[in-house]
Amino acid sequence: MSETNSLDALIQALRRLPGVGVKSAQRMAFHLLQHDRPGAQMLARALTQATERVGHCARCHTFTEAAVCSICSDARRDATRLCVVETPADQAAMERTGAFHGLYFVLMGRLSPLDGVGPRDIGMQPLLERACDGAVEEVILATSFTAEGEATAYALTEALQRRGVRVTRLSRGVPVGSELEYVDLGTIAHALADRR
Amino acid sequence: MSETNSLDALIQALRRLPGVGVKSAQRMAFHLLQHDRPGAQMLARALTQATERVGHCARCHTFTEAAVCSICSDARRDATRLCVVETPADQAAMERTGAFHGLYFVLMGRLSPLDGVGPRDIGMQPLLERACDGAVEEVILATSFTAEGEATAYALTEALQRRGVRVTRLSRGVPVGSELEYVDLGTIAHALADRR
Repeated sequence: MSETNSLDALIQALRRLPGVGVKSAQRMAFHLLQHDRPGAQMLARALTQATERVGHCARCHTFTEAAVCSICSDARRDATRLCVVETPADQAAMERTGAFHGLYFVLMGRLSPLDGVGPRDIGMQPLLERACDGAVEEVILATSFTAEGEATAYALTEALQRRGVRVTRLSRGVPVGSELEYVDLGTIAHALADRR
Repeated sequence: MSETNSLDALIQALRRLPGVGVKSAQRMAFHLLQHDRPGAQMLARALTQATERVGHCARCHTFTEAAVCSICSDARRDATRLCVVETPADQAAMERTGAFHGLYFVLMGRLSPLDGVGPRDIGMQPLLERACDGAVEEVILATSFTAEGEATAYALTEALQRRGVRVTRLSRGVPVGSELEYVDLGTIAHALADRR
């Protein structure tokens, strides 16, 4: 396959996708070229269009093609509640609950010193300014309950409380629908400590 | 995220890749837009270029940008031996052993009635014509040692022997149930030497 440079280039480009190694990239390239060339062309167009058109919302930092996203520009949303999430996917999950009617701030990441992700990369300063805009009465931290998500929540809590902002965190506990014997001990311990 | 149509289109397009579900597609799209827009543009270009330029070798059916691939057009290769493999990845694995100096026929698939892959899809007829071109003295079947690969080998053996072609199969040194491209090179080399 030495002379098929376009094929090698495609395999290399596919490896830029997260979680895709050389074998997967090969399999993807062969599949597209053998069985789904329309899919390959569609993907090429979608990539070009998305990189050209998708930017960040000026208010909440989520992905949007407009200057301000549809949620931030919706006057019916409760501007006194600001929910901080890590990614647009987390924001979408929160929206699907139908239980939150406030606004969002999407960090587009989380603090991760080992990966070189610092406060500037997650928009800490814009968040602080946003939270002190006079309208926000409560910041709800909905970062992940992982080591990095917790560290992010801790850092944000410190910075926000120093500015006199009221900060809450999603409660930890036993997931709905789960049986106690299958829940990990850390979760049970937290659920016990946070009992109400 | 209702108005970000380019983002949704990108997520949908990424799902065309084999083994990529909605969560992975979302993660890939977010990663590219947030951290690797040059990578997204590179991938778009690579996809377009590959679909435009990469075709099939007229002799062995593997992917190539030329009319005939570099192996088929190499006069030093032994034209009396024809090795039948399923994919270009299998062909590449065989080449890396350095133990085979003949030519190839790449099926670009395998018989799989359940998936609607029949003899025509794997180029059975071109293979039969190729094997009876007068130069080929031995056809070495190197399809996978899976149920479908074995069925393919069986069907090819039947058809080739009916035309008086000498057919051999890689020896069962290859662990049953594994696919050729994942087997270590020494095992492939032994299986080639012990072909029956």
